[in-house]
Amino acid sequence: MKACILTIGNEILKGKTVNTNAAEIGRMLSFSGYDVIRGLVVPDVKEEIGQAFRSLIVKCDIVVSSGGLGPTFDDITMASFAEEFNIPMVVNAGIYEVIKTRTIKRGLEMTKEREKMALVPQDSIIIKNEVGTAPGIEYKIESARIFILPGVPAEMRSMLKSIEDRIKLNDSFYYEDSIVIVGVYEASLAPFITELMKRYGGRVYIKSHPTIKEGNESSLEVEVSVKSDSIKTSKKLVNDVLKEIKDLELKIKK
Amino acid sequence: MKACILTIGNEILKGKTVNTNAAEIGRMLSFSGYDVIRGLVVPDVKEEIGQAFRSLIVKCDIVVSSGGLGPTFDDITMASFAEEFNIPMVVNAGIYEVIKTRTIKRGLEMTKEREKMALVPQDSIIIKNEVGTAPGIEYKIESARIFILPGVPAEMRSMLKSIEDRIKLNDSFYYEDSIVIVGVYEASLAPFITELMKRYGGRVYIKSHPTIKEGNESSLEVEVSVKSDSIKTSKKLVNDVLKEIKDLELKIKK
Repeated sequence: MKACILTIGNEILKGKTVNTNAAEIGRMLSFSGYDVIRGLVVPDVKEEIGQAFRSLIVKCDIVVSSGGLGPTFDDITMASFAEEFNIPMVVNAGIYEVIKTRTIKRGLEMTKEREKMALVPQDSIIIKNEVGTAPGIEYKIESARIFILPGVPAEMRSMLKSIEDRIKLNDSFYYEDSIVIVGVYEASLAPFITELMKRYGGRVYIKSHPTIKEGNESSLEVEVSVKSDSIKTSKKLVNDVLKEIKDLELKIKK
Repeated sequence: MKACILTIGNEILKGKTVNTNAAEIGRMLSFSGYDVIRGLVVPDVKEEIGQAFRSLIVKCDIVVSSGGLGPTFDDITMASFAEEFNIPMVVNAGIYEVIKTRTIKRGLEMTKEREKMALVPQDSIIIKNEVGTAPGIEYKIESARIFILPGVPAEMRSMLKSIEDRIKLNDSFYYEDSIVIVGVYEASLAPFITELMKRYGGRVYIKSHPTIKEGNESSLEVEVSVKSDSIKTSKKLVNDVLKEIKDLELKIKK
């Protein structure tokens, strides 16, 4: 099953904010058994957001977005999504009451900015926000499941955790582990990795990441990952291959 | 002028690596006067990489990619780009000599993995790698300038710095600054920000980012940014608006 990650927000494009949300969503989707095949970042512009959702649902079985759910003028993810797919926006009575109660308790007034956070596309499944105010939603368009989550990391993280159980695949198990090798150049290790991957018939994915270089000592993180139909198989394959890489290290260094 | 950022690598999609490169590239492009309108992350798959470049050059005046330039089997950015646009791959004699000299000095053998790092699309402008081995390139396709940089952050950063002068726009100057407001809810500030932006006739962009929440104290970072034809104007507008927001804070808190 294929997954896409959509991030909405000018601050990400400008690099003012590092996209940690996308990484957290990517981790969760991978360990839930999905192949994450696309990441997309778009600005706070209605047409761009709508078209982004449209372009991703044809590629992926699941699309998880973050950003654009708050009370400000540029929080327009819900409205953009709804407009793109001709879904009416409706006030969710439950969310409205929560916001109203909290607002009154704080001695503040119910304004259109606060009301806006209770507006969701009709027939959405609500994902409660236990940390902040604006809820997330789940929505199905054709064969794609769409999750629209907020951009504030603590809020996003809490909602992501809450949907984990219901998106986990039960026939696809991902496992990864890595080792750090010092004193071997990436180019020296490369042909051995290619051979190793061939020998395992494409069941194992091996990637090397050059890390800190001190003087002439080259340091490589070698990551091994497997997706299979059982977690036991995935773990065993990863560990077998890691052991072979350790043996390789000694052989290359000699 | 519009800019797009392309990131290549499974490790980014899976969230094993946070995409700090895209943020650094986004900062640099913004402060060089560009509007960053799109971020895209694709896996280490030839067709996906080629199509990603093709889709971005029609949207943007400048495309900066990172990732996929090393010696391993999945470092295929150059070849994917070249194939998509029917450009022959050629050995760059200068780069080849540098790699060969370094390899021999280390007592290692010249292999096809090392040779590969000297292969670039014909007529590329080479961007030297002062930190690692594989070079980056600049290439022009139709009206778009394309920069292909490596994924290792230290290498990417060094090359990014080296191209800064030649991409800086001389008629577009970006400036931003922010203040932190404590004890004002985002929804309470929102209508004032909308009004303020209207009053400045769209010349100023204001975005609030809810940050850490301690107890009931809501903390907001309010970011003000301006792009204009002189750095003096951009700075002045940002500072004027920040002053107005400080006054607002006192007014709302009363």
